[in-house]
Amino acid sequence: MEPLVRPNVVRAGHVALYVTDLARAREFYEGFLGLQPVHAAADAVYLRGYEEREWSLKLQLHPWPGLQHIAFKVWDEEDLDRAVALARELDLAWREEVDFDRPRMVRLQDPFGFPVAFYRRAGRHPSLLQQYHRYRGPGLQRLDHFNLFCPDVPRAMAYYTDRLGFRLTEYTVDRAGRVWAAWLQRKGNVHDVALTTGAGPRLHHFAYWVPDPLAVLRAADALGGAGQVEAIERGPGRHGISNAMFLYLRDPDGHRVELYTGDYLAVDPEFEPIRWSLDDPRRQTLWGHRAPESWFQEGSPVEGFDGKPVPPQPAA
Amino acid sequence: MEPLVRPNVVRAGHVALYVTDLARAREFYEGFLGLQPVHAAADAVYLRGYEEREWSLKLQLHPWPGLQHIAFKVWDEEDLDRAVALARELDLAWREEVDFDRPRMVRLQDPFGFPVAFYRRAGRHPSLLQQYHRYRGPGLQRLDHFNLFCPDVPRAMAYYTDRLGFRLTEYTVDRAGRVWAAWLQRKGNVHDVALTTGAGPRLHHFAYWVPDPLAVLRAADALGGAGQVEAIERGPGRHGISNAMFLYLRDPDGHRVELYTGDYLAVDPEFEPIRWSLDDPRRQTLWGHRAPESWFQEGSPVEGFDGKPVPPQPAA
Amino acid sequence: MEPLVRPNVVRAGHVALYVTDLARAREFYEGFLGLQPVHAAADAVYLRGYEEREWSLKLQLHPWPGLQHIAFKVWDEEDLDRAVALARELDLAWREEVDFDRPRMVRLQDPFGFPVAFYRRAGRHPSLLQQYHRYRGPGLQRLDHFNLFCPDVPRAMAYYTDRLGFRLTEYTVDRAGRVWAAWLQRKGNVHDVALTTGAGPRLHHFAYWVPDPLAVLRAADALGGAGQVEAIERGPGRHGISNAMFLYLRDPDGHRVELYTGDYLAVDPEFEPIRWSLDDPRRQTLWGHRAPESWFQEGSPVEGFDGKPVPPQPAA
Amino acid sequence: MEPLVRPNVVRAGHVALYVTDLARAREFYEGFLGLQPVHAAADAVYLRGYEEREWSLKLQLHPWPGLQHIAFKVWDEEDLDRAVALARELDLAWREEVDFDRPRMVRLQDPFGFPVAFYRRAGRHPSLLQQYHRYRGPGLQRLDHFNLFCPDVPRAMAYYTDRLGFRLTEYTVDRAGRVWAAWLQRKGNVHDVALTTGAGPRLHHFAYWVPDPLAVLRAADALGGAGQVEAIERGPGRHGISNAMFLYLRDPDGHRVELYTGDYLAVDPEFEPIRWSLDDPRRQTLWGHRAPESWFQEGSPVEGFDGKPVPPQPAA
Repeated sequence: MEPLVRPNVVRAGHVALYVTDLARAREFYEGFLGLQPVHAAADAVYLRGYEEREWSLKLQLHPWPGLQHIAFKVWDEEDLDRAVALARELDLAWREEVDFDRPRMVRLQDPFGFPVAFYRRAGRHPSLLQQYHRYRGPGLQRLDHFNLFCPDVPRAMAYYTDRLGFRLTEYTVDRAGRVWAAWLQRKGNVHDVALTTGAGPRLHHFAYWVPDPLAVLRAADALGGAGQVEAIERGPGRHGISNAMFLYLRDPDGHRVELYTGDYLAVDPEFEPIRWSLDDPRRQTLWGHRAPESWFQEGSPVEGFDGKPVPPQPAA
Repeated sequence: MEPLVRPNVVRAGHVALYVTDLARAREFYEGFLGLQPVHAAADAVYLRGYEEREWSLKLQLHPWPGLQHIAFKVWDEEDLDRAVALARELDLAWREEVDFDRPRMVRLQDPFGFPVAFYRRAGRHPSLLQQYHRYRGPGLQRLDHFNLFCPDVPRAMAYYTDRLGFRLTEYTVDRAGRVWAAWLQRKGNVHDVALTTGAGPRLHHFAYWVPDPLAVLRAADALGGAGQVEAIERGPGRHGISNAMFLYLRDPDGHRVELYTGDYLAVDPEFEPIRWSLDDPRRQTLWGHRAPESWFQEGSPVEGFDGKPVPPQPAA
Repeated sequence: MEPLVRPNVVRAGHVALYVTDLARAREFYEGFLGLQPVHAAADAVYLRGYEEREWSLKLQLHPWPGLQHIAFKVWDEEDLDRAVALARELDLAWREEVDFDRPRMVRLQDPFGFPVAFYRRAGRHPSLLQQYHRYRGPGLQRLDHFNLFCPDVPRAMAYYTDRLGFRLTEYTVDRAGRVWAAWLQRKGNVHDVALTTGAGPRLHHFAYWVPDPLAVLRAADALGGAGQVEAIERGPGRHGISNAMFLYLRDPDGHRVELYTGDYLAVDPEFEPIRWSLDDPRRQTLWGHRAPESWFQEGSPVEGFDGKPVPPQPAA
Repeated sequence: MEPLVRPNVVRAGHVALYVTDLARAREFYEGFLGLQPVHAAADAVYLRGYEEREWSLKLQLHPWPGLQHIAFKVWDEEDLDRAVALARELDLAWREEVDFDRPRMVRLQDPFGFPVAFYRRAGRHPSLLQQYHRYRGPGLQRLDHFNLFCPDVPRAMAYYTDRLGFRLTEYTVDRAGRVWAAWLQRKGNVHDVALTTGAGPRLHHFAYWVPDPLAVLRAADALGGAGQVEAIERGPGRHGISNAMFLYLRDPDGHRVELYTGDYLAVDPEFEPIRWSLDDPRRQTLWGHRAPESWFQEGSPVEGFDGKPVPPQPAA
């Protein structure tokens, strides 16, 4: 039975966001960030980065801003059955769903209250990677990872490693030696998902890979030039954890999106997770810059199985 | 009398090009290179880079492709009178002209047959430099210099230094010790004008400054991505002479435009011109790459005082 | 039996080169390229990139310049037994070897004559990735891939996919529709090994990942600045195939090393290999630049099981 | 007489700093920032950037950290006589001095208490600009400007424009419409000197030009990597004023040095100074980031004519 209950996750696949003003959200993600539409309906738009063959961001008009779900792509159809088996074994609420270009998704409410979907098949579109004449803004290439606020990070970390087969790459410990944050991967770089101590379930951010560090600067320039400085929450900077160059933005609904580039390969079998002390000033930013308080406190509500926002529980 | 006949040139000011298909030329300069229009008429368009407050490139529909004129900006109105005095002293054909946003230009046929205009006043437009959200393509910032094919470079060099007050920054000598090419400046960097041995008068190229070396790569990517590889004539590379990163493009009419960045400051009074041997492989490209034969041979015809192309004379 | 004969390859692991002048080779790889030594003996040095925890390049003093072997890292010790079983099944010459920081390697002569080692354990060294104050030159991060000259690419491709579990990402076909070159991966980006039609077995090149496109330019500048233009064989440029920015260098013994950055993620289960025509000018370089003839013709000899260079066979 | 009392300033020339630990200061400027020594004595070292033909930074061992003087390079020897005449006319303390590679300097105490030297001749050294294989750290190219804390900026601005011929490029006004800070240039880019309201005379910072925005990031990475995060005071960021990418560092004695790149050409005769409101969040950083309080408050003491630090006067 054990193999059945462990779906083979390939990578972070997509994020479905609730936004309260679709035109404003499109201006941000398409206009400033340059994501490319693959489909637009009256109340939703489906976007992708220049490297992606399938959509990775859905913006869904909704009465409240929040996370409809995050989704992981799995290796084959049977992995979706394994996701169902996992839900049954852990007694998690689940259902099958369809969406544009997603003929079958298994969506469950995970043990920590997060809405998480698994999918295998997706509508595939012609590559834009070398259509450089069409690039706009910082040239977002592909979805890289999710970051989640969890009240109990050690327990969530165990779920991701034991039940979903993720590998730990880096982690932060507090003075008591307890894991405060964790970075976990399937696709071979630093993370597909990160877990951060905080009131949850809430989405801390999702991140897109950009092609080089100058793309990060260009994004800040474009937002500054447009007078949208309030959209720039943190950075540009170099992470201590992950080594990536980053920029954290807040979209018009307050959702946080990171531009990210330049981490490292984490595929070696003997890879030893990197331990950081919560007191190390270079953990947040290698250059010693402190993240603003909003970055530690604010996140997006997530949708429960009943369609309502899940009330966050405070961190232990 | 002597001060009167030496106009105080500030910098390379603009280039007026004849093109045979205005829509196609606009697609190249606006679409791929991102130059911004300040004015468009039925048969002409006036473009500027993101840093410029006045137009620097005019595309004029014309029966034959060529150079209408290059223009230098001068310090004050009296410098235009000095340009007239210079023309009279040297018995050069000249006339006053007006154009869009150029209420007074003194246009002469220089001793080597080049159509050269001088102007002081220009319509000024709001700055786009920090409108980064509007940047397209490689983000051309400003016109940097002209490069001219001359049969007799030493004589043309003497004219620019003695009569127009240019300073020599770098030069190439052939095995006989004769100056084969010369780089001359007024605005304080490597050049406002360069002179190259070849059949002339012809325009070798004009160049725009871009903000950083990645912009040069982005331009090549955009043209390659669009399948316009024939527009990429030479580079990207690093010049030995000038130290700049460069990319040479050919527009749809065959006019050559360079993207250029990263030279040096040349304002010191004791600045000693840098001498290069024509045999040094790093002269053309610091990396040793040879320029293609077309780069040495091809250029744009220039307009004579009679409105016809000036027949080029072979190099001595 | 079938699972036993398919070792689980993690990634391209290291390259062991024969060099005829160790000091000169060290000046190139350590001095210009900035690789960091982990161990130096009288007749050999072991180097790594800034991201690597184990050495990835061995320079071995030898009477003739060539390839001692390329090596793949495998997932666990039993994969080494599987490599032995594979050698036995295919009747390949093999032996176990040890080297510095490599307590067990299974080295075989593959069906095409290439010396290929497999290893799992390696001496691990403290990370240098964030020791940015120690970076020198272009900052090579990690070994990325090997490229091999093979007379019969389709057969070698089948070996890599069927017996070693590699996935095809891109390939070139000639006018007859025959596969002329192939890019194959295990670690999730474009390739760990590429196969190119040519007299073989010979090593075409090995490649290091660099952190951003400017690092590629810095390497060319450093070699040009040092007057080593003959070391720059091709590039900098943008590959059509793989989308990476590249620079091909020749070391003092003529071995070819590529600096490489900016390809894409290739982990999706439905990833469709990208097909290129041998006639497409953007295949070699997206910008349309042709590779020099040396790049198509020259490569490093490889060591046979008897310690002598393997005589290359011409392409079919 | 009037022309005599207006020396023709070419550019910001050098800065002579007092440091309390020469080895520690050298580790910072040579080790981390990569400045190149042209001369070293027991108690002083003279450094230059890769583009400079003469030294631009002197580190002088001294009992207290401070500014010995800033220096402007002038066009010819007579400009030094004009500097003397200016000192006499304004009744400023002055003397002639010599230093290494500086056979004649006119050093005066300006009307605001700053020690300012003028010089024309300097020992010239072979160019390092294309010696890219010798570059270390961020590759500082050339001294760009000084920034001075003045209690009365409007008066100091009038001195620089009227008596030294500087041109205003940008300025900040407070709510009362009074000039709070001013950027003034001679060499054609945004500034050779900037004046900032604050207790003075004190040196706010001096700045070096770097070749591209990635160099700014590399400097921060190198200091972060070395654990010297306390040396990073502000940035990397994009200035609203000047448009430059910047990074402010504090050396081991607390002197502030800026890495700076990417401003614009300011040579046009009709250039209109750009006005900023002190309330505009994009003034300090285009991206809206606030400078830390230390950046507004702290500066280096300057040497008086008597060799003692000049007591700063509070801002009006």
